[in-house]
Amino acid sequence: VTRTVTASSSSRAERDGRRAERRTAVIDLGSNSFRLVVYTSVPGSWWKRTDEIHEGVRIGQGLGAAGELSEAAMTRALRTIELYAHFCRASALPSSDVHAVATSAIRDARNGEAFLGRARGASGLDIRVLSPDEEAWFGYLAAVNSTTLEHGVVLDVGGGSIQLVEVRHRHPGALGSWPLGAVRMTERFLPGESASKKQLRALRSHVREQLDDARWLPSSGPRLVAIGGTARNLAAALQRREGLPGFGVQGFVLERDALDELVADLAGMKVAERATVPGIKPQRGDLILAGAVVLRAVMEAGEFEAVEVTEAGLREGVFLALHLAPEDPPFVDDVRASSVRNLAAQYDANADHARHVALLSLQLFDALAAAGLHDGDAEERELLRAAALLHDIGVTVDYDDHHKHSRYLVLNAGLPGFTPRETALIAQMARYHRKGTPTFGELEPLTRAGDLQILERGASLLRLAESLERSRDQIVERAEIELDDDGLVILRTVSREDASVARWVAERHVDQFERAFGRPLSVLG
Amino acid sequence: VTRTVTASSSSRAERDGRRAERRTAVIDLGSNSFRLVVYTSVPGSWWKRTDEIHEGVRIGQGLGAAGELSEAAMTRALRTIELYAHFCRASALPSSDVHAVATSAIRDARNGEAFLGRARGASGLDIRVLSPDEEAWFGYLAAVNSTTLEHGVVLDVGGGSIQLVEVRHRHPGALGSWPLGAVRMTERFLPGESASKKQLRALRSHVREQLDDARWLPSSGPRLVAIGGTARNLAAALQRREGLPGFGVQGFVLERDALDELVADLAGMKVAERATVPGIKPQRGDLILAGAVVLRAVMEAGEFEAVEVTEAGLREGVFLALHLAPEDPPFVDDVRASSVRNLAAQYDANADHARHVALLSLQLFDALAAAGLHDGDAEERELLRAAALLHDIGVTVDYDDHHKHSRYLVLNAGLPGFTPRETALIAQMARYHRKGTPTFGELEPLTRAGDLQILERGASLLRLAESLERSRDQIVERAEIELDDDGLVILRTVSREDASVARWVAERHVDQFERAFGRPLSVLG
Repeated sequence: VTRTVTASSSSRAERDGRRAERRTAVIDLGSNSFRLVVYTSVPGSWWKRTDEIHEGVRIGQGLGAAGELSEAAMTRALRTIELYAHFCRASALPSSDVHAVATSAIRDARNGEAFLGRARGASGLDIRVLSPDEEAWFGYLAAVNSTTLEHGVVLDVGGGSIQLVEVRHRHPGALGSWPLGAVRMTERFLPGESASKKQLRALRSHVREQLDDARWLPSSGPRLVAIGGTARNLAAALQRREGLPGFGVQGFVLERDALDELVADLAGMKVAERATVPGIKPQRGDLILAGAVVLRAVMEAGEFEAVEVTEAGLREGVFLALHLAPEDPPFVDDVRASSVRNLAAQYDANADHARHVALLSLQLFDALAAAGLHDGDAEERELLRAAALLHDIGVTVDYDDHHKHSRYLVLNAGLPGFTPRETALIAQMARYHRKGTPTFGELEPLTRAGDLQILERGASLLRLAESLERSRDQIVERAEIELDDDGLVILRTVSREDASVARWVAERHVDQFERAFGRPLSVLG
Repeated sequence: VTRTVTASSSSRAERDGRRAERRTAVIDLGSNSFRLVVYTSVPGSWWKRTDEIHEGVRIGQGLGAAGELSEAAMTRALRTIELYAHFCRASALPSSDVHAVATSAIRDARNGEAFLGRARGASGLDIRVLSPDEEAWFGYLAAVNSTTLEHGVVLDVGGGSIQLVEVRHRHPGALGSWPLGAVRMTERFLPGESASKKQLRALRSHVREQLDDARWLPSSGPRLVAIGGTARNLAAALQRREGLPGFGVQGFVLERDALDELVADLAGMKVAERATVPGIKPQRGDLILAGAVVLRAVMEAGEFEAVEVTEAGLREGVFLALHLAPEDPPFVDDVRASSVRNLAAQYDANADHARHVALLSLQLFDALAAAGLHDGDAEERELLRAAALLHDIGVTVDYDDHHKHSRYLVLNAGLPGFTPRETALIAQMARYHRKGTPTFGELEPLTRAGDLQILERGASLLRLAESLERSRDQIVERAEIELDDDGLVILRTVSREDASVARWVAERHVDQFERAFGRPLSVLG
């Protein structure tokens, strides 16, 4: 993959980084689906999912009734495990870098151990059965490392079980696992083509009774974060229904009322129809209703107004526990800053240049706030910083239109910890660091009043900073702002050597500055 | 940048490649604009433009009348050259990897040498003035390495001059340079806000007279390929006018009649209006009409029905002469195959996997053609091969939806040598190697009758091949096709070891096969 021009210092560092790339496979043998995920990472720098094989194995099928894994389910499971083992060998992944975990269905089945013996024999894979608490812990790690959750609860709705973890000051508190997974609840309460009101009531009261143990739930912090396919599919369905642009569901918030409407609609459909609802994966059509009812009942039990979805799951938890070791607990300090760093490092941009553009644009942001030209909002500042660090990552795609490619990469790779609105703002600021008049286009529905002004200010400051750094050699060390008596804004540069060329380039953006800040600008030495 | 899982053999090779990355800067001091372009390359593997600073310097402004570069133009030029020199130092580009060339305006001006002395003194850059023949030669190299031109003519419309090169069997024949560039012709013939019929006639007859020397022009090969900003802007304007999707203008064909309509419209507008025509860059508003008339007059003189646009230009010629050395003449054997390899190598996909998917899908393609299930069209086969080699490059963006990201990368990075329609087919085949029902969506206007069937066949074969290679270990060595008496198509695998899992995965795609080929499929060992 191509890199942009890089000053020699960071270039060397990046090459060292590249050499230290590691691959780690996590195999998640869940009750509904099996998944092999490969993560590529450079310890201390970046990580990312780079491969995946997903199979809807449904090893938990029929388990609730019989207490045993069925022969048909085991055959599907063994084939899939064999496929994964082939894959790991072909990818030259040493067994020490392959981490296979099994959860509820295999853990709870009377013949689970026998099945594991066959699976280990056929594949050579070392499969570890997670205890309920371990399963909850890995889900918690996934959530706390991909959201800004500080006080609240993490909910994982799986195929066989659900896990709840209380979070206080980001640390885990009470936790538990209940056999209320979507496959299990579907088979027990909603087995037919249609769901009756009575069946739905029975399911709801079953969940309520079961959750009676979780005494701590109603008194937990205010935020509920959900992981797992049920939550992701419900978020995707609501996203479509609300006409929002769909770049994944990271950070999507399911409000109680909207969710109630969706659940009511799903309850009125036959299974085959549910499978065709936009956002619901076809193979989840038969499970989604039970999963939704369980999720909704947890909200009720914990008195949550909304639930926030993260795309990370158990497998990210397993990976992050390794990747972040020896941190204890293994979590990143600042999820938002870490997401931005992770993306910037992956695309190997000219880090010195991007950091200097961030420095200069934030100097301007702060100075203009001090001069009373805007509010200096801390969140706006954080978004500007992120956009500055990511403004050039699109060069990876192609130099032409790289500002548009930066936008595409931000939106599609995602920035865990930022809301969809914030991610849209960062993407558009990066988009408008050159060329064109700032607008939100298809992202408009994610924004709120005042966001266009935030975008205009950000784009204007990025263009000025980029111009002052046009020669990429950081000769402009500081950008200062003065106001003269006539209301003219004066941008003064403090530089290591003559910066007249940098100012000459910056002068092209004075009109855009005036549109964004309502004052004329003059660039002086 | 992230790589996908890679078998150790190719991974090692790729890492060696990565270490050998080189950067080369080309500075093109043209009569209209100055441009610094940085190319990153691995000799023998890939190259790509990774940075650029473009400035509309207009050093040729006023030259035609005075015969001298004006003081104002030289001031703009010196600032820009100083900026470029800063950039090169900041980027740690040694002077041996910086190639600065000057063309018509500086070459022809009486004070050109004096200007160069000042420029060299101020910047330390070693600037080489190209002779008219050298300028033509580098333009020819750009064209012949970015199109499939075998017999015909390369036209470069610059700011000061135009160059024409005859091409026979891809080799250069007669060539020449004429002082008919867009800046020069605008100043001499179309200096005002509006253009009168009389002025346009005068310009046309001037071009015709001047081209009288090019006796070889009417008897040249049938294809005309144009490089330079005039051609790119005209192509972009026609693309918008025709409602075609705009992913650059590589390979876009300007038909004579459509061009005539556009020129007539531009002639009826004032300069300020021309600058707002979608596709025309604002700063080219005053030059586009003269440039278009010159281009049109060349078509007439050479009796060309159409002109094909390439995005490569003089600077790519300068770079490729270095990159492809010691090849003589420095051109790639097969532009299309080279474009595909170039893109695949940049995004560091799992090369062993991609090549094996290509092998298996082409085995199926050929066997199905032999069995009479489709025509086995050679061009269709080439598109399928390209799509197979590129199907996973989108993992660079994100694993989720990587099929869509592969499409995005193909469309945006481009595939020189393929037409926009062919590029669209490759992009959609890569898109539909997994998930969804093949359609062209916004690319529809680029396609023609029968293309949906090509796409369906391609997507079906890619899914089958991908399934047989799902474990990424190339255990399925060959895919064979038989027809039974009832019209059932039987896919048989020949494999190094038991491939029942591979067949189990492939069986999921039999329905799609039947839609694409009109026959049921069965997968057997």
